[in-house]
Amino acid sequence: MDIYEEALARHEETRGKIEVRSRMRLETQHDLSLAYTPGVARPCEVIAADPSRSWDLTWRGRTVAVVSDGSAVLGLGDIGPMASLPVMEGKAALFHEFAGIDAVPIVIDAHEPDEIVSIVKAIAPTFGGINLEDISAPRCFEIEDRLQDIGIPVLHDDQHGTAIVLLAAVVNAARVLKTTLGNMSVVLNGAGAAGRAICNLLLCKDTDEACIPVGKLRVCDSKGILWPGRPGNTPVKDEIGELTNPDAQRGDLRDALRGANVFIGVSRGNLLAAEDVRAMGSNPIVLAMANPTPEILPEEAKAGGAVIVGTGRSDFPNQVNNVLAFPGLFRGALEARAKRFTNSMKFAAIQAITGCVEEPTPNHILPTPFDRSVAVRVADEVAAAARRAGVCYEPAK
Amino acid sequence: MDIYEEALARHEETRGKIEVRSRMRLETQHDLSLAYTPGVARPCEVIAADPSRSWDLTWRGRTVAVVSDGSAVLGLGDIGPMASLPVMEGKAALFHEFAGIDAVPIVIDAHEPDEIVSIVKAIAPTFGGINLEDISAPRCFEIEDRLQDIGIPVLHDDQHGTAIVLLAAVVNAARVLKTTLGNMSVVLNGAGAAGRAICNLLLCKDTDEACIPVGKLRVCDSKGILWPGRPGNTPVKDEIGELTNPDAQRGDLRDALRGANVFIGVSRGNLLAAEDVRAMGSNPIVLAMANPTPEILPEEAKAGGAVIVGTGRSDFPNQVNNVLAFPGLFRGALEARAKRFTNSMKFAAIQAITGCVEEPTPNHILPTPFDRSVAVRVADEVAAAARRAGVCYEPAK
Repeated sequence: MDIYEEALARHEETRGKIEVRSRMRLETQHDLSLAYTPGVARPCEVIAADPSRSWDLTWRGRTVAVVSDGSAVLGLGDIGPMASLPVMEGKAALFHEFAGIDAVPIVIDAHEPDEIVSIVKAIAPTFGGINLEDISAPRCFEIEDRLQDIGIPVLHDDQHGTAIVLLAAVVNAARVLKTTLGNMSVVLNGAGAAGRAICNLLLCKDTDEACIPVGKLRVCDSKGILWPGRPGNTPVKDEIGELTNPDAQRGDLRDALRGANVFIGVSRGNLLAAEDVRAMGSNPIVLAMANPTPEILPEEAKAGGAVIVGTGRSDFPNQVNNVLAFPGLFRGALEARAKRFTNSMKFAAIQAITGCVEEPTPNHILPTPFDRSVAVRVADEVAAAARRAGVCYEPAK
Repeated sequence: MDIYEEALARHEETRGKIEVRSRMRLETQHDLSLAYTPGVARPCEVIAADPSRSWDLTWRGRTVAVVSDGSAVLGLGDIGPMASLPVMEGKAALFHEFAGIDAVPIVIDAHEPDEIVSIVKAIAPTFGGINLEDISAPRCFEIEDRLQDIGIPVLHDDQHGTAIVLLAAVVNAARVLKTTLGNMSVVLNGAGAAGRAICNLLLCKDTDEACIPVGKLRVCDSKGILWPGRPGNTPVKDEIGELTNPDAQRGDLRDALRGANVFIGVSRGNLLAAEDVRAMGSNPIVLAMANPTPEILPEEAKAGGAVIVGTGRSDFPNQVNNVLAFPGLFRGALEARAKRFTNSMKFAAIQAITGCVEEPTPNHILPTPFDRSVAVRVADEVAAAARRAGVCYEPAK
């Protein structure tokens, strides 16, 4: 049985991947009067008087919604909300497994950013955080931006989870090569969901934390190097162009790669050959994230001279996997009672992940996804950064 | 410590009443490839090709959302979504405890029926059913009516749960008195959320099941007997007036009570005295549901000659408690993969509940709320009625 049929069989057997349990005893009439009427009136009144008490008295303090419209499901595209539910349940199961978070999948049958924004706003009092998932670009940018002030942390994992783990990979690759990001010239290929977030992190945007911006950054998409005002640009592509290429230098991916030290691909499979890597600068680092087929296979990248290669796949070394970031990010935000995610919290997550590898080597720049200590360390650092940034609700006295 | 402070302490201790667990093993890389990428793509594709398969392959087949805007919380009124969350968590815990249903509280910060309807429609692909809860009248009628065609069963428990258990109480009271509903004259005081549903059930509206309509029915509210066209009537009050009093007889509650056999109160405490019961017809039945203080206390009703008295309280005999209805109603609907609730399904629930009491007596017309067999019997009858009514999705071959 191949992995797909085995997955189908296992889903049929368990009828989904998550379940809801009661955690208060409900055996006697007295139990019922505490959990439900009349006793429940008291926690309700306390929250009505002080909304921040909902973090102590309900599941909010440990609960995240995994929200998707099913418009950009990995490898499947726009399959709609109902068909995307197994992915969101899987994500919820990972939240529980890696961070003890009670995550709830919410798939929504809505398409306009306006609708999605108002639905998420409306259901926000139920949850302590919102993980947006598999929402297509460029809608995902507008949706996430407009949800930053709703009073709970909202994060589109396809943007930031990916970006954070990639950055941790770049930082530890630099450690292996005994250099820093400031000395590096980076080419990012792909300006979809993760593009903007990767740029912002590489350039140390809006952070109070110590951070070295990358020496040079060029971003390409299927039409070549991005520049501001390029015909057909979305607002986000203009923003990226302005940030990375204000002089509007033009060219294709190969032009950009010439002399660069790092290639980051969040695009599509089989784009590069060994000779393209050979044209890069000294000690090339190749992070080829396209799934399931990377932009270039590790053996070919190495044939071209790459000294460190990472992919999104578990069957090669250096797997760049979001699971290293999102469980700890949200757990830290919940523990600190954060009202939002800040860039400083994202940099703190990068620091924590890189710190989990004591002695990085070319084949071990990242912790493995199954290292349970990663989420704990990420959560601690993220919570501390949130407190430093002053974006948290006060806990009850 | 009184019950309220004890409830507060217990809520602080457990930090809410429900939790989400993973039910698929996630220990190895192989587990992860089955539950998440790449294996999860297969159940997604299967659902994309046939949406009804989401009942087998996700939690939908066992999951209900408990949705509220917090506008009419029992005893507390319009406290808003966030403060109502403990009540919705409690309801979710009861769903799990009494019917093994995975229920998720969703409190929504929205007020217009239009908004609430579109939000519930949008999140519907996530769930197998929607329990609307504590939404104020008359908005609750419009909201529930407009959600009947969304493809999953939607039920406002304050309307139908209450009505179903009350009807079971009336039917078994009639059994005690060796009479039938056809011989009874009933006065219903209160035309809020439960009023219309009680009328529809007492009059056997829209059912294919065997059903004896009540002999006579008068409905009162704070302004006295309802009649169609009465100044200030909402559309639902006009509908109730048309249904129960087309000749527009006028009077107050006392006029209505004269000679009646059954008083049903879903109104407010301390409305009636013993002499009011004395003015009723032979063998008065009094079901005084106002909470926490009934329309008339049992001892006073008995002093006025009532032979059977029920209330909403657990410290008197004959507690009329929704928990006898909603767990089994939803479990039956989920088991049958029903697309909606029909009146026949509600009548089936009444039949099941009455059948749970083999030999009803004046102090025992209903099963106790802790009788776990009730939900099972209700579920069986409701599922069978749904199948007879032909409102179900076909299960997978």
